Amino acid sequence: MKPASFPVVALAGGVGGAKLAEGLAQVIQPEDLTIIVNTGDDFEHLGLTICPDLDTVCYTLAGLANPATGWGRASETWQALETIGELGGPTWFRLGDRDLGLHLERTRRKRQGQPLSQITAHLCRAWNIGAAVLPMSDDSVPTWVYTTEGELPFQEYFVRRQCRPQVTGFRFGNVEQAHPAPGVVEALQRAKLVVICPSNPWVSIDPILAVPGIRETLPSACAVAVSPIIGGKAVKGPAAKMYAELGIQPSALAVAHHYGDLLAGFIVDKVDAEQAGEIQTSGRHVLVTDTLMTTAQDRARLAKEVIAFGSSFSR
Amino acid sequence: MKPASFPVVALAGGVGGAKLAEGLAQVIQPEDLTIIVNTGDDFEHLGLTICPDLDTVCYTLAGLANPATGWGRASETWQALETIGELGGPTWFRLGDRDLGLHLERTRRKRQGQPLSQITAHLCRAWNIGAAVLPMSDDSVPTWVYTTEGELPFQEYFVRRQCRPQVTGFRFGNVEQAHPAPGVVEALQRAKLVVICPSNPWVSIDPILAVPGIRETLPSACAVAVSPIIGGKAVKGPAAKMYAELGIQPSALAVAHHYGDLLAGFIVDKVDAEQAGEIQTSGRHVLVTDTLMTTAQDRARLAKEVIAFGSSFSR
Repeated sequence: MKPASFPVVALAGGVGGAKLAEGLAQVIQPEDLTIIVNTGDDFEHLGLTICPDLDTVCYTLAGLANPATGWGRASETWQALETIGELGGPTWFRLGDRDLGLHLERTRRKRQGQPLSQITAHLCRAWNIGAAVLPMSDDSVPTWVYTTEGELPFQEYFVRRQCRPQVTGFRFGNVEQAHPAPGVVEALQRAKLVVICPSNPWVSIDPILAVPGIRETLPSACAVAVSPIIGGKAVKGPAAKMYAELGIQPSALAVAHHYGDLLAGFIVDKVDAEQAGEIQTSGRHVLVTDTLMTTAQDRARLAKEVIAFGSSFSR
Repeated sequence: MKPASFPVVALAGGVGGAKLAEGLAQVIQPEDLTIIVNTGDDFEHLGLTICPDLDTVCYTLAGLANPATGWGRASETWQALETIGELGGPTWFRLGDRDLGLHLERTRRKRQGQPLSQITAHLCRAWNIGAAVLPMSDDSVPTWVYTTEGELPFQEYFVRRQCRPQVTGFRFGNVEQAHPAPGVVEALQRAKLVVICPSNPWVSIDPILAVPGIRETLPSACAVAVSPIIGGKAVKGPAAKMYAELGIQPSALAVAHHYGDLLAGFIVDKVDAEQAGEIQTSGRHVLVTDTLMTTAQDRARLAKEVIAFGSSFSR
């Protein structure tokens, strides 16, 4: 049963963000939940517009996600990609057959002139997703990764090079000219709680915050983040590796510093309880709890705790 | 065992043409066989360049074709198309997952600037097809079907409308500006036998012949055609319906008239033996045989008979 709820906005990237977003969707009335998703990972591949984070969030909310990988669809098949490989084409980006169907249909609608936010709303209706899933922007804001081997488009770094190159910085292409997608600013203005999901701060959350109008509108007094770093390691992805390569000891504390005064509350895992004191000294509320989401029950439980925590000081 | 052979060119459209082309490939040394394929059916769909006749010929020669339909691949799956359908996208053109892999890779190469003939040669190498498969042209020559319901792009007529609209004529877009693909004219000049496969004269063979340079180069003295009309009916497709709608009684004789003095020989099915006399009166050699190709053995047997027939008067 969902409690009497209030407007909540979640900022999310890929797998970790999608899990907490799904937990929030389990416990909040759909009309009260808006999920703003990173589109800095989006890219053109094989002529298709691919939006990995949006898709991970939508697949997860729709119950279609592959539970083993976190990305892609359950019961996926790989016939098209196998054929591409037989013909000497690129197979480094793993596109399943069902996933391809989505990319083909999204690309078709995009060519017809539909903005990404409209296409995403259509997908959500088709998949009975009640919450509002919004791309951070309808404008292309491609993330570039500066590395000791040169500047790489995000998916080249992330998938093709498997995060091996050493990171020196990031650039969000065209971000100065980008606008928040329709509904983003309104949702932030209406929000009684903003949850920064346990996504990569550098390449999942920072791109969202970099879109002019989003950081400025975000109500810090009721904003909380869940640390994606647990015990000095990222649950998934290169967040910890990035911190280390940028000369910062990866930790929940480092993430808290990363977001600075954007947040009123911060949630760390039990294994990082000893960092709570130092995070609190900067005047921030801290919740220490079990943040690892293995089951659907974990997601809902963490979502409820995040809501209760945020409500305790922000309303 | 393949006989000592000589240069043979086959002109082919889709399923029927592909079957005889495959029969020819069974009995002719690969370096002596060139198959010139209709590309008037080609179209852009879901952002992909799709070449139905080229694909049917290549799939058939590679042993990958679906034996039940004649088009598409054996052991095909349909996950992508199912997803497109779930999302409200177009599913009228049946694209299997493996088939999609080919279209994605071809489209990727085309965007890189590779001409269709080069891409097709690459596919043939990947699939160990020994014969030279050439598109009639690297230029786009889209077939339009005039109907009582207006002018329709070929695939709209053929697949989406399932050949229901009544045909009044045809147009091969841009054909005056089109050039034969590299190798087409050379193969025709070298040919000791040209075989017009049992493909639709109106929309499979006529587009090939309409490309400036092809009809002019085709050596009529050694050209034979196999009638696609058997007992007044097309084995597959709308050829008979088109003849009837254009006011011509569909028959092997009508096909022989269609090609006129382009041919030195004509091959009719046993059920049409009584038409042999009238076809011969126009000075044309006629072979009456079993032209229905049900098995791989049928294809090879017919191919051998076609070669022996052509050789009997042309060398």
